[in-house]
Amino acid sequence: MGGGGLRPTHLAGIPLGVAGEIVRAGQRMDRFGWVPATAGNISMRFGEPGSEGRIAITRSGVHKGFLAASDVIEVDFGGRPLIPGTRPSAETLLHCQILGAFPEARAVLHGHSVAGTVLSMIEPAEALYFEGYELFKAFAGQATHDARLALPLFPNDQDMARLAAVIAPHLAAMPLGYYIRGHGAYVWAATMDAALARLEALEFILECELNRRRLAPGRGSA
Amino acid sequence: MGGGGLRPTHLAGIPLGVAGEIVRAGQRMDRFGWVPATAGNISMRFGEPGSEGRIAITRSGVHKGFLAASDVIEVDFGGRPLIPGTRPSAETLLHCQILGAFPEARAVLHGHSVAGTVLSMIEPAEALYFEGYELFKAFAGQATHDARLALPLFPNDQDMARLAAVIAPHLAAMPLGYYIRGHGAYVWAATMDAALARLEALEFILECELNRRRLAPGRGSA
Amino acid sequence: MGGGGLRPTHLAGIPLGVAGEIVRAGQRMDRFGWVPATAGNISMRFGEPGSEGRIAITRSGVHKGFLAASDVIEVDFGGRPLIPGTRPSAETLLHCQILGAFPEARAVLHGHSVAGTVLSMIEPAEALYFEGYELFKAFAGQATHDARLALPLFPNDQDMARLAAVIAPHLAAMPLGYYIRGHGAYVWAATMDAALARLEALEFILECELNRRRLAPGRGSA
Amino acid sequence: MGGGGLRPTHLAGIPLGVAGEIVRAGQRMDRFGWVPATAGNISMRFGEPGSEGRIAITRSGVHKGFLAASDVIEVDFGGRPLIPGTRPSAETLLHCQILGAFPEARAVLHGHSVAGTVLSMIEPAEALYFEGYELFKAFAGQATHDARLALPLFPNDQDMARLAAVIAPHLAAMPLGYYIRGHGAYVWAATMDAALARLEALEFILECELNRRRLAPGRGSA
Repeated sequence: MGGGGLRPTHLAGIPLGVAGEIVRAGQRMDRFGWVPATAGNISMRFGEPGSEGRIAITRSGVHKGFLAASDVIEVDFGGRPLIPGTRPSAETLLHCQILGAFPEARAVLHGHSVAGTVLSMIEPAEALYFEGYELFKAFAGQATHDARLALPLFPNDQDMARLAAVIAPHLAAMPLGYYIRGHGAYVWAATMDAALARLEALEFILECELNRRRLAPGRGSA
Repeated sequence: MGGGGLRPTHLAGIPLGVAGEIVRAGQRMDRFGWVPATAGNISMRFGEPGSEGRIAITRSGVHKGFLAASDVIEVDFGGRPLIPGTRPSAETLLHCQILGAFPEARAVLHGHSVAGTVLSMIEPAEALYFEGYELFKAFAGQATHDARLALPLFPNDQDMARLAAVIAPHLAAMPLGYYIRGHGAYVWAATMDAALARLEALEFILECELNRRRLAPGRGSA
Repeated sequence: MGGGGLRPTHLAGIPLGVAGEIVRAGQRMDRFGWVPATAGNISMRFGEPGSEGRIAITRSGVHKGFLAASDVIEVDFGGRPLIPGTRPSAETLLHCQILGAFPEARAVLHGHSVAGTVLSMIEPAEALYFEGYELFKAFAGQATHDARLALPLFPNDQDMARLAAVIAPHLAAMPLGYYIRGHGAYVWAATMDAALARLEALEFILECELNRRRLAPGRGSA
Repeated sequence: MGGGGLRPTHLAGIPLGVAGEIVRAGQRMDRFGWVPATAGNISMRFGEPGSEGRIAITRSGVHKGFLAASDVIEVDFGGRPLIPGTRPSAETLLHCQILGAFPEARAVLHGHSVAGTVLSMIEPAEALYFEGYELFKAFAGQATHDARLALPLFPNDQDMARLAAVIAPHLAAMPLGYYIRGHGAYVWAATMDAALARLEALEFILECELNRRRLAPGRGSA
C-alpha cells in the first residue's frame, strides 16, 4: 500500500501518459477486488503508430491498486526487461504474446476474481459457454445478445513459455479473452478504456453465471 | 475511464444542471456496479414546464460511471439526435417512449445488475412477482408493504422499434418499472433523485429475491 | 442525491454536532447499502444531561446517504414535530419508544439489509437465534462468544402505534436489538459510534447466518 | 467513527510512521468489511533492527477503520501496556506470541470476514484445506499453485493465555496463518504491505472456497 520509500525511476522511455493509464487501471481493478495481494498485471503498447512499438508493463511484487509510475517498466517482445535489474510481472510473456499476435491491441489486462476463479476450477469442460447476455456487445465484433460465446479455460502452469505454447493455437478465436484455471482472466483491446470495459463485461457475466449455477447446482455450461 | 482526448461539446441547448444530474446519476450507478463496460443509459426531460419539453440522453459507447457533460446529447421524441453526427445510446427509443407516455416523468434510468440479469434469464413466467417488501413504498402510489407487485419481463431484442411495440401495451400498469431479459431495468420518476431511489429499491428487492431463491432453489415467483 | 434546491432550515434548537453525527451515520449506512432509496432513519437524544432531553431525527422522504443538516428535525417523545410542517420519518414513534424506554440510549439506528430482509421474511419462528459469534461482544453486557442470542422478529405494520404496542412487552430483553420482517433492524446505544458498531456487528452476523443457510438450505434457527 | 473528543496521546515512543501504517491498514481492512464494529486488531514491531524490538498495537474498543494515531499504544512481549491505564486489544497476547516466535515478522493483522467466520464455524475438521490456487504464491515460500495448503482452525476462547497455549505447538507450520472459529484470521509478514497482501490473498481464497461449497453443499475440505 502506498509508496514504500525510495524506488529507482524506471520511467526512462515510457511516456508518463502510458504509465498513468496503467496506474489508473490498477486502481479501478482494485476497486472491484480483482487484484488481491500482488496479483494481476497490466500492460500497454506504446511508441510509433504503425510500428510494432514497445511494451510497458507492471513490475513484479507490487499491489496493482497502489501503483506508482515507477512501478511500470519496459520489456521487449520476448518479455525481457530493458533495464537490467528491473523485474516484470511473472506472466509478462502472456502479455507479449497477445500484443505480438494482435497488432490493433494496445492494452492487456490480467485480473483475478472470485467468480472466475471458482468457475474455472470446477468446470470440467475446456471452456465456459455463455448465452444470451446483452453485455456480449461490449466485445469486438459482437452486435447482438443472441449468441453463444466461449471463454477458453487453460490449466495453470508456472512455466510461462509452456503455457504460452498451449494458448497459442487458440488465440485467433477468443471473442471474450481467456481464463487460466484457478488463476485469472486475460482481456485486451485497442485502448485501456476498452480493455477495462471488456474486463468489466466479462466479470459481470462470470458473476451472473456463478449465480445461475448456485440456483441450479448441477448446471454445467458445456 | 476519464477523458480520452478531445471531444466535441454537444451541450448546445442542454442546461448544465441537467447534464450534471445525469453525470452524477452515472457515478452513483457505477458505485453499485449497474453500468458495467459501456452498459446502461440515462435521460432527462428539460425545457419549458408544462410543455412536452426536450430530451437529454447519454451518448453511445461511453462508460456511464465516467461521464463528462459533453457525453450528454439531445434527441427528439423519435430518438433522433438533434446535432448530426452525435450518436445516442442504443436504447434511446425506450427512453423516448417512457417520456412520451408519462408527462410527469422527467428522469429515466436503465441499468444492469447481476441479480436482475440472472432472475430475468431464469424466470419462465412473464413477470417477477414480489410480496411484502417495505421498500414497495419507494414506488409511486404504494403506501404499504402489504401488496404483491409484478415486474414485467420482456424478451431482449436488438430492434428497438419492435421492442418498444412489445412494451407499449403494458406501460400503463408497471408500478416498479420493467426489465428486459438478460439485459437490464428501466425505471422513471419526476426527478433524478426519485428515479435513483426507485432503482435502488428495485435492485434491493431483486437482490433479496435472488437470495430467497438460493435458499429454496426450486422456488419460482409466478 | 445531493442538494435539491432550497430547503427551510429546521436546525433551530438542534446542536450542529448532533445533526453532524446523524449526517455521518447516514453516509456510513449508505456505504454498506443499508439505506436504499429513502429507507432507514436515524435519531439522537440531546439536551441537558440527566434530563429526558429532546429528540433529533431524520425527516421523511430523503436519502439517508445524502443528508444535509437541515434534514434533521426535532420531535417530542410522542413523535410529533416541534416545527409545524416538518415531517419526520414514518417510523419516528419506534425511535421515541426506544429513547423513552432506555434512558442511557442516545442514538437509534434503523436500516435495511438484504441479509436481514431475507432472513426475517423466511424465518417461521418469532426470532432468529445466533450462537458462538465473537461479535456478540459488540453488544452491551456480552462478554463472550459462548452464548445463544435471539433477535426478535415482528410482523411489519404501517400503523406505528400498533406496531409499538406489539414491540413494547419485549423491549426489556433484546440484547441485539430487533427486526421488523421484510423491513429492517433497530439498534441503539449510548453514543452514535456505539450504535453504528452494533449495527455493523448485527449485520455481519446476519450475513454469516444467511451464508450458513445457503450451505444447508433446510437449516432453521429456531 | 471519527474522533470522539479528547484522548490522551499514547504515542510516546512509537514512531509516527509506525502508527501511520497501522492507521492505513485499518482503513484498508474496513474497506473490505473485515473490521466490523470494534473487531480486529493490528500490531507492528518497531525499534532497533536486529533486536527483539518493541510492539505497537491498536487499543481496545475503537473502530479499526477510523483509527487515530493516538489509538496505537505500546505493549511489552507479555502483552502488558507500557503506559498504565492504556488498554490494548483483547487478543494482544496472540500478536505478542507471533512477534516472539517469528523474528522476521514485523506486522500482524487480525480481521473478521463473513466467509472465514462461516467456514470456520461449519468445518468439522481441524483445518481448512485449499488446493490449486494461484494466490498461494502470495505466501512466503510458496512458488506454485500446485500444492495443498492447510489453514488451521482453533476453537474460540476468551482466555488468551489458554488460547495461545493451544496455538503454540502449531505455529511453526502455518503457511497461510491461522483462524479462530467464529472469530477471525491471523496473518503476519515482514512488512505491513506484505501482511495486508497475505490477508487479501487468504480472504480471496476463503471467499472462493465458500462459493465452491455453495455449489456443492455437501463438499467438505478435509
